[in-house]
Amino acid sequence: MTRILIIGAGAIGSLYAAYLARVAEVWVLARRDEHARCINERGIRVTGRSEFQARLNARTDPCELTEFDFGIVATKANQTREAFAPAAHLFPQGAVLSAQNGLGSEEIIAELMPSGCVIRGTTFMSGTRLADDHAHYELDTPTWMGPFEPTNTPFELVDELAALINASGLKAEALRDARPAQWSKLIFNASVNSVAALTELPHSPHFAAEVHFSDLGNLLHDLIEEGKTVAAALGIELHEDPWKMNCIGAQTNHPPSMLYDVRHRLPTEVDFLGGAIAREAQRVGVPAPLHTALYRLIKAKEASWSWKKENVLEAVERE
Amino acid sequence: MTRILIIGAGAIGSLYAAYLARVAEVWVLARRDEHARCINERGIRVTGRSEFQARLNARTDPCELTEFDFGIVATKANQTREAFAPAAHLFPQGAVLSAQNGLGSEEIIAELMPSGCVIRGTTFMSGTRLADDHAHYELDTPTWMGPFEPTNTPFELVDELAALINASGLKAEALRDARPAQWSKLIFNASVNSVAALTELPHSPHFAAEVHFSDLGNLLHDLIEEGKTVAAALGIELHEDPWKMNCIGAQTNHPPSMLYDVRHRLPTEVDFLGGAIAREAQRVGVPAPLHTALYRLIKAKEASWSWKKENVLEAVERE
Repeated sequence: MTRILIIGAGAIGSLYAAYLARVAEVWVLARRDEHARCINERGIRVTGRSEFQARLNARTDPCELTEFDFGIVATKANQTREAFAPAAHLFPQGAVLSAQNGLGSEEIIAELMPSGCVIRGTTFMSGTRLADDHAHYELDTPTWMGPFEPTNTPFELVDELAALINASGLKAEALRDARPAQWSKLIFNASVNSVAALTELPHSPHFAAEVHFSDLGNLLHDLIEEGKTVAAALGIELHEDPWKMNCIGAQTNHPPSMLYDVRHRLPTEVDFLGGAIAREAQRVGVPAPLHTALYRLIKAKEASWSWKKENVLEAVERE
Repeated sequence: MTRILIIGAGAIGSLYAAYLARVAEVWVLARRDEHARCINERGIRVTGRSEFQARLNARTDPCELTEFDFGIVATKANQTREAFAPAAHLFPQGAVLSAQNGLGSEEIIAELMPSGCVIRGTTFMSGTRLADDHAHYELDTPTWMGPFEPTNTPFELVDELAALINASGLKAEALRDARPAQWSKLIFNASVNSVAALTELPHSPHFAAEVHFSDLGNLLHDLIEEGKTVAAALGIELHEDPWKMNCIGAQTNHPPSMLYDVRHRLPTEVDFLGGAIAREAQRVGVPAPLHTALYRLIKAKEASWSWKKENVLEAVERE
């Protein structure tokens, strides 16, 4: 039976783990001991799109694990290094999928696993982790996956993992080139998340409004156009139109993950979203002033959480 | 004796009122009845750069006032119309100075006073209003003032008011063209205030840091350069270098007024700061993508305060 390790058991990791446990031997590498204990005792319960209880194994110490055929990294992008480094030796023959937001996680995984195979992944499926042993499955859009070019991952490995995911009841699509899918979501995600983090608005109708000069939709349009220019300079033709994705999302009033992070003063994924677009733009020599500006604002906003309060008197009508 | 009406008694208005009361007959048009009562009973006490007690008159109802030689509007820029409209008829022969932030208040004052004379003003003096009858005077930099071009204000009127201000113990400089001074402060103010409002950092050393790609000082530099391009397109040569002003300010850790507004969820002056640069740029056909982007973000941030909370479940690990 195929052995799969899920690294990170948030909403997405829990869904992969529970579904795949129906067709493979699944282990979860969790961060907290009580989380692993809970999964070992009770498994993971899925509700929403389908309802079932999965039995599986969890550990927090990679020393208690042996080799795997596949790994799926499902942590926040900015936790990739810390979470995957202790487990990187467990895939001497296997392949590891990044099912994370943005751009740059595959590079970190490949660096930690010098002779291993990495799979470039982008998922739009969504869910909510209601408890350590309970994930609610919401959007059942597929995981798009393809070889991570620098590791020369054979397409057959991608196909094999995609087939397993599809057999489990989730959706996956194996692509010869996953970059068009990844960049479509990257441009959408970077634009919407940065704006939500700075305005503290959920993904509301404001994001698609373009009537007045001051309307926020004009900025989203400009950010998305700028992202498309960077993708084009990299020779990437997009898989979907990020502006259409934005217009659909703007009807949901859904809080993007970076809005959640900002509200709770947690480090955001901006280095892998808007920051990744800004860096790629700089690397290939095309301008990306808007993504660069928003990236710098969000890094400074993160810095504000630990910055000492001003020591001057703050009075109501100081000018 | 020259009769002067101060419209708005925040920190700056209180300082003008108290100082000018030493050389002129000064009345204050306040918003709150208890504020007017307090000033009528106790005057205004000044501390800081100098210490004295001024006796003067205050009202909240303009019907209780007669004509004046000069007016000084010292409200927040976004309160100009509401505060000045009821008093606009009190200056049939007089001139009215805008001592407000940003660009656009003079236009509103002129519109409300069709045959009157408006004086373009920019002040860098700063203080803190410690109580209704107590203003603390901090930076004693001058008020720069000049004729507001569309009302053909005689320079002699500007000179007369500047002389009164100087005689009172404050500093003023009458300029044939006050736009270079106004735009120097506008570019500085728009850049620093927008960034502070979005990052929630006071004017800290981050604003001048330019070592790493993600450093905030790079963005300030770009915003200031963009503002200078717009000023140049309008034929305005700057009075001071806004980048130097930023580097000095970045050592103060002072909370800019828009940071105060954002913290207290008050409407900001962004329409008169970054929004004014964005609109002027559009009017003369030069690009100002950064000021325009930050303007839209801040308008959306203001909108977030009254936007309904998302109705979807917000859980810790929603992806």
